[in-house]
Amino acid sequence: MTDMSPRRAGGRAARREARANPLVDELRPIRAGMNGGTYKPLAETDLERIHKAALRALEEIGLSDAPASGVRLLTEAGAILGDDGRLRFPAALVEDMLAIANRSVTLCGRDPVHDLDLSGTRVHYGTAGAAVHVVDVDTHEYRDSTLQDLHDAARIADRLDNIHFLQRPMVARDVTDNREMDLNTIYACCAGTKKHVGTSFTEAAFVPDALELLHLIAGGEDTWRARPFVSNSNCFVVPPMKFATESCEVMEACIRGGMPVLLLSAGQAGATAPASIAGAIVQAVAECLAGVVYVNAMAPGHPAVFGTWPFVSDLRTGAMSGGSGEQALLTAGCAQMHHYYSLPGGAAAGIADAKLPDMQAGWEQMCSNVMAGLSGLNMVYEAAGMHASLLGFCHESLILGDDLIGQALRCVRGIEVTEDDLSLEVMRATCLDGPGHYLGSDHTLTRMQRDYVYPVLGNRASPKEWVEQGQPELVPNATARKNSILAQPSRARFPAEIDADIRRRFAIHLS
Amino acid sequence: MTDMSPRRAGGRAARREARANPLVDELRPIRAGMNGGTYKPLAETDLERIHKAALRALEEIGLSDAPASGVRLLTEAGAILGDDGRLRFPAALVEDMLAIANRSVTLCGRDPVHDLDLSGTRVHYGTAGAAVHVVDVDTHEYRDSTLQDLHDAARIADRLDNIHFLQRPMVARDVTDNREMDLNTIYACCAGTKKHVGTSFTEAAFVPDALELLHLIAGGEDTWRARPFVSNSNCFVVPPMKFATESCEVMEACIRGGMPVLLLSAGQAGATAPASIAGAIVQAVAECLAGVVYVNAMAPGHPAVFGTWPFVSDLRTGAMSGGSGEQALLTAGCAQMHHYYSLPGGAAAGIADAKLPDMQAGWEQMCSNVMAGLSGLNMVYEAAGMHASLLGFCHESLILGDDLIGQALRCVRGIEVTEDDLSLEVMRATCLDGPGHYLGSDHTLTRMQRDYVYPVLGNRASPKEWVEQGQPELVPNATARKNSILAQPSRARFPAEIDADIRRRFAIHLS
Repeated sequence: MTDMSPRRAGGRAARREARANPLVDELRPIRAGMNGGTYKPLAETDLERIHKAALRALEEIGLSDAPASGVRLLTEAGAILGDDGRLRFPAALVEDMLAIANRSVTLCGRDPVHDLDLSGTRVHYGTAGAAVHVVDVDTHEYRDSTLQDLHDAARIADRLDNIHFLQRPMVARDVTDNREMDLNTIYACCAGTKKHVGTSFTEAAFVPDALELLHLIAGGEDTWRARPFVSNSNCFVVPPMKFATESCEVMEACIRGGMPVLLLSAGQAGATAPASIAGAIVQAVAECLAGVVYVNAMAPGHPAVFGTWPFVSDLRTGAMSGGSGEQALLTAGCAQMHHYYSLPGGAAAGIADAKLPDMQAGWEQMCSNVMAGLSGLNMVYEAAGMHASLLGFCHESLILGDDLIGQALRCVRGIEVTEDDLSLEVMRATCLDGPGHYLGSDHTLTRMQRDYVYPVLGNRASPKEWVEQGQPELVPNATARKNSILAQPSRARFPAEIDADIRRRFAIHLS
Repeated sequence: MTDMSPRRAGGRAARREARANPLVDELRPIRAGMNGGTYKPLAETDLERIHKAALRALEEIGLSDAPASGVRLLTEAGAILGDDGRLRFPAALVEDMLAIANRSVTLCGRDPVHDLDLSGTRVHYGTAGAAVHVVDVDTHEYRDSTLQDLHDAARIADRLDNIHFLQRPMVARDVTDNREMDLNTIYACCAGTKKHVGTSFTEAAFVPDALELLHLIAGGEDTWRARPFVSNSNCFVVPPMKFATESCEVMEACIRGGMPVLLLSAGQAGATAPASIAGAIVQAVAECLAGVVYVNAMAPGHPAVFGTWPFVSDLRTGAMSGGSGEQALLTAGCAQMHHYYSLPGGAAAGIADAKLPDMQAGWEQMCSNVMAGLSGLNMVYEAAGMHASLLGFCHESLILGDDLIGQALRCVRGIEVTEDDLSLEVMRATCLDGPGHYLGSDHTLTRMQRDYVYPVLGNRASPKEWVEQGQPELVPNATARKNSILAQPSRARFPAEIDADIRRRFAIHLS
């Protein structure tokens, strides 16, 4: 724990809080990093076939458009550059790089209580991007998202137990200079939460400034490198099977700077990926394997997340449909491939096609979120707040997503079967000698807090009680919670002297 | 196919339709009876432990309150009546009865296209009851449900592809005489849909009249017995571990009349069942095993559904919470126990605690519905329309449930992995020689109808298109679809002469 930077200057109270949190966490019925893996849409032989098809795609089709630096790195490692400009990857090269890839990745929070251990089938839910609109639940307007909206999302996510990380959910469209936008994005996210933050960069040239900012926040380059609390969400490919030249350069810069990388392949089945679910998985796996080769050829063992994010098209229109059942299957199938390789992995779930936080949004967000969790996906990106197939972000929906994901996490936790769980003795006592019911029994009371999850805003009142409560509505209650959270100061704001240093050095647009 | 009763008097057109339907069904991406089973919350050893605990509960605790006829039947079969009035079941008796239990149950539709084959992990979704209110989505009022509401629900369910059966979702509270209510319930359901109908009876004495009504509808007792299209949803136990005396008598009468029986154990974890999920499953399994013994002692091989329906309490209040994650786990765990015994099984999923068809309702209904389907539950009861933890039924929610369940069914269908699915050749053609995208490729177009599910009311438009559409809202659109369905005549109404016979014989309250 090298996390002794000046920003921790809260003294005894802060340490007490830090110690207390994991303990409280142990008592909670749900928490970050619970193990999934009870749901397996693909048979063992299917995994093998997908792997083999991906290897053949890499060997026979390969990827075009690598930057010069990437061509050099990859051909030196053993990739073959064809006359057609495509880099082809022999199976042995892929297997060699898989052998040295980092399998024990921890994505750090700025506070260690928020660290994410991406091993096995451990599941974490968080946001991702990048919406260009904010959804106003009162006016139903989709307006341009701003830096303040982004900061507000970070502050809200910070207070929601079931949002485990914050990948930048929105584009700060009011910051028109790309360099300033990238820097302000980091500032707005990190000033709002100490949970792990994911972000992206428009150009490799912006990365050094970003690293300088991160060193300032961390209290030095060493402390940053010891616990990098920001990862680079990197769309290093343009599916099908092309490297994204500039993003690859960004990736190289981030790797040099000690930043973990999310190798993100975002094909769209039926448009930029095959229309069949298995085919879209094959292509995403092939592309991410190319990424694994790239990363490990450059920096063996550099922390990377295997980011197979195939999306789905509505084939009637060609538009994306992130809320579909096909999307839920794609994501769960990808999670199984991550486990096949024993690599830390991430994919997208929780996207709504619905424009508003309505019933459609609820069923769409739950479908893929619960299936992703049950499949043991390490990083469930896009898990809350996302509407209109990623075009709109909604703060109220983020808040309701905390309840929704809490329920999904309860399902991930699963069913324990100990002698005490089997309950034969309590059944015997209840039926033969007891009151004939289990209300108020010790067995029941001990499970009330330990086993059962209670929603914050989800309403379980009877119709009669609900009328007495004044027929509370879900979305206005979410707005009230939003206002209450935003009325409090951020728990993640930087100490004054560091904030002043940052603002002297960079043009920070957040007041 | 003995289904040649006069009510089929539609002539050539009707037969053509009947032949055409299965064909169309084959081409649909989803249909009734697809195989689940990819989600297994319980390990193999857990199943064994639950089975053994249930056997011990039956042997050591037993059940009280069997009717005299049941005591006679069960003791003759080998159960032991204790001084405490409890019937205890030696393990050998349970195993013997399991050996002769009917494993190939088909629940018939009045039209054979709606037959439900409950083998293996085949999944069917439908309604169940019994709500006492109808939810008015305009006024937010919970008003008493009527016979007309029930008939309307049947007519709506008849038009929804993803609602595969209609168990009576509401109580006709405007029919105050219990005998007339039971008879009118059958009339209202069967006059609204030719899908399989489930219902219950207040007293055994009402069953002969019901059978007479069913014979009239079927065109004779033989045709009824050949294809019984109504099953008896029978709460034969009052958990914990007590027979429901009168319901057992109803069950006996139904068995004599050739009616399939749903052996329904509806404990509530933390109230009338143990608070642990595994414990609630143990008790439900024990109770349903007692039911299997009962049925097969009386009529070996009589078609029965193993109806473990444990519900969940919100332990803060003791109230039921059918929309919880705990409920979804209970139901999926029960489905695994059904497969352990290779018995046709049913349980409850799709219940919302939400009072209205809002975002909470969406996530609650999807969570348990998709998990039930993935676990391979044969009969998913309560799958659509249910709010306030079964107290309220909502027609609009039933209609939206068709989209929601369609998506769940797409997930149940899963991921095919054939050579063509793997898509290596289409990838090669696209990347090396082709347009660099998959839009409009044959591979994509053939999958557009065959593999992809499109919602009827779920909106996938972009924000811009959505504004151009006038920002359509989900629930008012569901109301419009309801009105459009109810403006059409029922496809299941009885031929005039039969209807006249029924009305001469019974007091039918439906005009």
